[in-house]
Amino acid sequence: MKKIITLGREFGSGGRELGRRLAEHLGIAYYDQEILTEIAKRTSLSEQYVHQIVEHRPITSYPIHVGRSLYAMPNPILEQSQAIYAEQTHIIQELAAEADCLIVGRCADYILREQKPLRLFVYADEASKMARCRLRAPEKEQLSDRELRQQMRAVDKNRARYYEFYTGQTWGDKANYDWCINTSRADIKQVAAVVAKLFM
Amino acid sequence: MKKIITLGREFGSGGRELGRRLAEHLGIAYYDQEILTEIAKRTSLSEQYVHQIVEHRPITSYPIHVGRSLYAMPNPILEQSQAIYAEQTHIIQELAAEADCLIVGRCADYILREQKPLRLFVYADEASKMARCRLRAPEKEQLSDRELRQQMRAVDKNRARYYEFYTGQTWGDKANYDWCINTSRADIKQVAAVVAKLFM
Repeated sequence: MKKIITLGREFGSGGRELGRRLAEHLGIAYYDQEILTEIAKRTSLSEQYVHQIVEHRPITSYPIHVGRSLYAMPNPILEQSQAIYAEQTHIIQELAAEADCLIVGRCADYILREQKPLRLFVYADEASKMARCRLRAPEKEQLSDRELRQQMRAVDKNRARYYEFYTGQTWGDKANYDWCINTSRADIKQVAAVVAKLFM
Repeated sequence: MKKIITLGREFGSGGRELGRRLAEHLGIAYYDQEILTEIAKRTSLSEQYVHQIVEHRPITSYPIHVGRSLYAMPNPILEQSQAIYAEQTHIIQELAAEADCLIVGRCADYILREQKPLRLFVYADEASKMARCRLRAPEKEQLSDRELRQQMRAVDKNRARYYEFYTGQTWGDKANYDWCINTSRADIKQVAAVVAKLFM
C-alpha cells in the first residue's frame, strides 16, 4: 500500500512535529522546508524570496535573484507566484511518484488529489497554540500575548488565502481532509503512533 | 485512564457503526437509542414522541402520553423539549459517572465537557453517504437520489439546529471536537481499531 500523506496545519498546532513523528514511524520521507529549497534551486530565486511569495507576505522590494524564465512580466509578483506554484506542483508530483512521503502544507493535498493521499489537518485552540509557540520559540518571549496572537492569525490568514487562491477550496474546511486532529489536549507522540497504524 | 467518548455524526456517514465498533474494541458501554428509551421511561412520554422532539421534527399532534411534570405549559413543545433536554443531561451525566462509555449524539460532548471526553465527529461526502444509506436501508430503494439527498440534509439540519440551540456551538465545527474523521474513503473497521489505540 502506497503511503502518501499530506498535512495542513494551523500555526502553533504542532502539526510539523506530528508530521515528522508520523513519517519516522512509517519510515517514509518528510518534506517541508525542503520543497522551498528545491524551488529556489530550480528557479534561481532566493529561498527567502520563495518563502515570502508562498506565504503571501507583503513584498517591499524586487527580488535580487531573478531567473531567466521569471523575468520582466506585467504583474511580476503575481506571475512569479504562479510560476513558483507551477514549479511546486512539479516538485510535489515528482516526490510523490518517487517514494512514499509526507508533505507539509504547499497545497499538496490538492496537487496530489489523483493519488488519493491520506489528507491530515492539524489544529488547536488559540490558548494551546500560544503556549506551544512560547515553548518552541523562546525568542518570542518579548512579544505580548496580543502581538503573538496577531502574528499567529496573520500566518494562518496568509496560508488560507494562498490555499484558496490555488485550490478554490477553503483551507481548514474538514470536507477537504480525511482526518482533522485537534492537538489542544493531545499527546502528539501518541497521536503520531496511532495515525501510523492506519498503514500497518 | 477513564474512557469517555462522545460521537457526533452526519447522517449516512457510518458514525454509528464506527461508534459501535470502537466501543466493542474498548469493551465499554455504547449508548445511542438507549438514551431516548430511558428519557421516555422517566418522563412517561412515548419513545417515538421523545425522538420527534429531540430531532426537532415537525410535530403534527399533541402527544398521547404526557407525564405529570410536563403537563400544560404555555409553549408546550418548546417547554417539553427543554424538559427532555434536562432529563437527557441527567441521564448522560449518570451514565458517564457510572462507567466508561461511548455516547452517540445528544449534545453529549457539551454536556460532559467538564469530564473532557474524547470528542469524535464523523462525516463524509454526499455521494458516499448516499451510497451507504442505500446499502443500509433497502426500503429506501424507492427514493430518487433527489429525495434521499433532501432527507439526509433535513436530518442533519435538524441535528445542527438542536445542537446549536442547546450548546451555543456550531454542529460539525471542528473546533468542538478532538478528531474529525471523514469516512468517504475509509474502512470503518480499521478506523475503529486505530482510534481504540488512543486508549491502549
